[in-house]
Amino acid sequence: MGKSVYNNVEAHKDITPRLELQQKSPKLMTLEEAIRHSGLKDGMTISFHHHFRGGDKVVNMVVDKLAEMGFKDLHLAASSLQDVHEPLIEHIRNGVITEISTSGLRGELAKEISHGLMEKPVVFRSHGGRGEAIASGEMHINVAFLGASSSDPLGNACGYSRSENAKSICGSLGYALPDAHYADKVVILTDDLVPYPNTPNSISEHDVDYVVEVESVGDSSKIASGAIRDTKNPRDILLAQQAAKVIVNSGYFKNGFSIQTGSGGASLAAVKYIRQSMIDQDIKASFALGGITAHMVKMHEEGLIERLIDVQSFDKVAAESLKNDPKHKEVSACEYASMHEQGAATHYLDIVILSALEVDVNFNVNVLVGSDGIIRGAIGGHPDTAEDSALSIIVCPLLRGRIPCVVNEVTTLITPGRTVDVVVTEYGIAVNPARPEIAERLKAAGLKIVTLEELRDRALSVIGNPAPLPFGDKVVGVVMNRDGSVMDVIKNIVE
Amino acid sequence: MGKSVYNNVEAHKDITPRLELQQKSPKLMTLEEAIRHSGLKDGMTISFHHHFRGGDKVVNMVVDKLAEMGFKDLHLAASSLQDVHEPLIEHIRNGVITEISTSGLRGELAKEISHGLMEKPVVFRSHGGRGEAIASGEMHINVAFLGASSSDPLGNACGYSRSENAKSICGSLGYALPDAHYADKVVILTDDLVPYPNTPNSISEHDVDYVVEVESVGDSSKIASGAIRDTKNPRDILLAQQAAKVIVNSGYFKNGFSIQTGSGGASLAAVKYIRQSMIDQDIKASFALGGITAHMVKMHEEGLIERLIDVQSFDKVAAESLKNDPKHKEVSACEYASMHEQGAATHYLDIVILSALEVDVNFNVNVLVGSDGIIRGAIGGHPDTAEDSALSIIVCPLLRGRIPCVVNEVTTLITPGRTVDVVVTEYGIAVNPARPEIAERLKAAGLKIVTLEELRDRALSVIGNPAPLPFGDKVVGVVMNRDGSVMDVIKNIVE
Repeated sequence: MGKSVYNNVEAHKDITPRLELQQKSPKLMTLEEAIRHSGLKDGMTISFHHHFRGGDKVVNMVVDKLAEMGFKDLHLAASSLQDVHEPLIEHIRNGVITEISTSGLRGELAKEISHGLMEKPVVFRSHGGRGEAIASGEMHINVAFLGASSSDPLGNACGYSRSENAKSICGSLGYALPDAHYADKVVILTDDLVPYPNTPNSISEHDVDYVVEVESVGDSSKIASGAIRDTKNPRDILLAQQAAKVIVNSGYFKNGFSIQTGSGGASLAAVKYIRQSMIDQDIKASFALGGITAHMVKMHEEGLIERLIDVQSFDKVAAESLKNDPKHKEVSACEYASMHEQGAATHYLDIVILSALEVDVNFNVNVLVGSDGIIRGAIGGHPDTAEDSALSIIVCPLLRGRIPCVVNEVTTLITPGRTVDVVVTEYGIAVNPARPEIAERLKAAGLKIVTLEELRDRALSVIGNPAPLPFGDKVVGVVMNRDGSVMDVIKNIVE
Repeated sequence: MGKSVYNNVEAHKDITPRLELQQKSPKLMTLEEAIRHSGLKDGMTISFHHHFRGGDKVVNMVVDKLAEMGFKDLHLAASSLQDVHEPLIEHIRNGVITEISTSGLRGELAKEISHGLMEKPVVFRSHGGRGEAIASGEMHINVAFLGASSSDPLGNACGYSRSENAKSICGSLGYALPDAHYADKVVILTDDLVPYPNTPNSISEHDVDYVVEVESVGDSSKIASGAIRDTKNPRDILLAQQAAKVIVNSGYFKNGFSIQTGSGGASLAAVKYIRQSMIDQDIKASFALGGITAHMVKMHEEGLIERLIDVQSFDKVAAESLKNDPKHKEVSACEYASMHEQGAATHYLDIVILSALEVDVNFNVNVLVGSDGIIRGAIGGHPDTAEDSALSIIVCPLLRGRIPCVVNEVTTLITPGRTVDVVVTEYGIAVNPARPEIAERLKAAGLKIVTLEELRDRALSVIGNPAPLPFGDKVVGVVMNRDGSVMDVIKNIVE
């Protein structure tokens, strides 16, 4: 074919001004149309992110619609699930959802599942493990339904907004990025449709197939709810202060160090209590990772933390900072904590402070299943960061009410003891025998070093020997290791 | 496997502080090691970007090394090639490079190829066409060698730097992003290795396999060289002013309009001359696309252009702005101009101003082959933006010295006339008959409307009928359409 075919000029273009043309974007449609276009079929895998935490409205909205459209036997692969997802119980009973993958479960849904609601066990993965499973193809997503705080009609989307009238802000979409990237089809749901180009953005139109405008994708007031509230609990504050002393005296408190604080009041608060030592000793952190909070943003703006790496924004201050500050960087779950990704952030993390439901005498940690055998938590990045960091610190009270937190053997294994270095309780600090140098440094700083056996015995002396939990024989959950092997299983609870 | 395997605590982690651990990054190696690790074999495809333009040092450095290591029969797939790549002539003669894909060719290399240096024709693609060919798998890259102005040891890389001692700044890496994303193996070469995390960044460690520290990746002083210098030529300024009048009176000069200026002094300068009209009429652009220049950055900072979408930074001011301004967004070649990507920026572009080597009476444009039959240009985003925009304006003098620019038939077809709306010369403005409404608006504004035939005749009356070019029978170049079909072929020149 040569140029001769172009020898005649002919009418040729859509001449509509492009600001108007956007309204005709072929990606803009209703949720039902998007589902039909996506080619979703019974038995396929749908995915969701949990950046709105307890305020999420997308999972219920989409699964209600899928039920209404008659879909069955779907695999729901969420980055995590919360109390608000209780309506899934009915959809499980009705056969719409027959398989779940998630980092965590809470509330009524968790209770029902713990009692054996589902035929197939729930598959629990860490955040890094989920990213890796998606990137490697081990978990293939057919259609991702991703709530966004803003999007343009072409699908450039993010967890913040430039609009005055933005409704639902969640900040980083880090856990949604592997889905956006690797799913066969990607549906963006947004309650703030803005003109192209929606920049800065985190999900690119390159990865988006459909854009659905909805009334609300989430309640921003709840992103800082539950396990990531700023604590006022005096015991949490004490634990945070002790953890700060461990950090400062650990040998890793040097210029250029890096730090992450996991969810839980005491761990999140720890960063506040190293601030003065950083100023006094003229130490700056190269980056804080996380789970970014207003405390971290403040210290970043003060120049104490050079860079923020944000896979999830834990409050609105963090979400706002992400929008405006080029040194506050959003990363995907893979870039955050994939085991096989040499450059993932956790591999270059010095210090992590994490919470626990239970720690046992072998430093094993449980953050998923309560001491009553009922699922009530989330793996999150717990095992990822504990393993990859140079120094992992668990903050954990000895008892919660009449429930012991230092035990002989964890109910469910989430984070292996060989990756846990220090356990901070209000009755003393236990150091993993594999890290004698850490124990020496903390002793030299006047901190009270104890053994986990002493702490366990102290807990038992208060509440007595607990009765064994009434587990049945049905496997209701499988905890995956980061490498795709099985770490532990969760049995149904009978009572 | 249960948790029992974790009942013994054991020595477990690398306890090196992570700032030191970075120096042991498994990705850090020499260029030769990276090539060996990459699995590159004879006959494979290697790729490069041209963001350093005439200052690029990566292509020659890498191909010299490949020659030294004995590689043969390689396909060099660059986003474009410049005068500085003259040393490739020897590598082609020696059989190291036997195939080339590029957007353009200049200088001695272009001259030799025009005379038949290579057995296989060079494949020319537009920037959007190349992005699409890579994303669709039509052009599969085995190893991408990507120069970066900074990188950390894990491969987070970009075209700017936070270092005081940054050496080579090029701004956007837009044309390298499809390579980073889709190549089997990605090698980052950098002359500014900074601590992790190198944020903000544009290429993620997720996509990078090897990081090579080199003396220099490019000469920043040359990124604003050649076709993208700020013009002081009075004729170019006249053409730019005429183009500005066309824009202002076209019917597309409305609040929220979008604009791109292609390379070439007159087209780049046009944006300067609409500034006052924007202020006077209180019109703001929603975005400028490109090819971002200092003029655009200035107007963005003044509030006249809301957002900048940057696939290539045309000067250092643009590169610096990209680093610091969240509303100045880097996009990949796909996000910029892929034909099949519904959300690509060009589809939402109102106005583009482009230059030309030749325009013919059917509005067809040639930007690649000189009137002497020798390749001396680049396709760039010319056909992509002309086709997708609502209004494409070509600025072109009637003659360049004794060479006519308005001709009966273009030497090589790059941009079909059906996608070209207006041609601006110093002797009048021609409007595509398919756009009568534009002609009416320009006439009403008092602009001089002529036909291309009149312009052609005027040129011929000055310089006489040119002799036919002495083309041979060998195909030395193939010009691809955006959809992967052949647009035109270039024959060897004999003399």
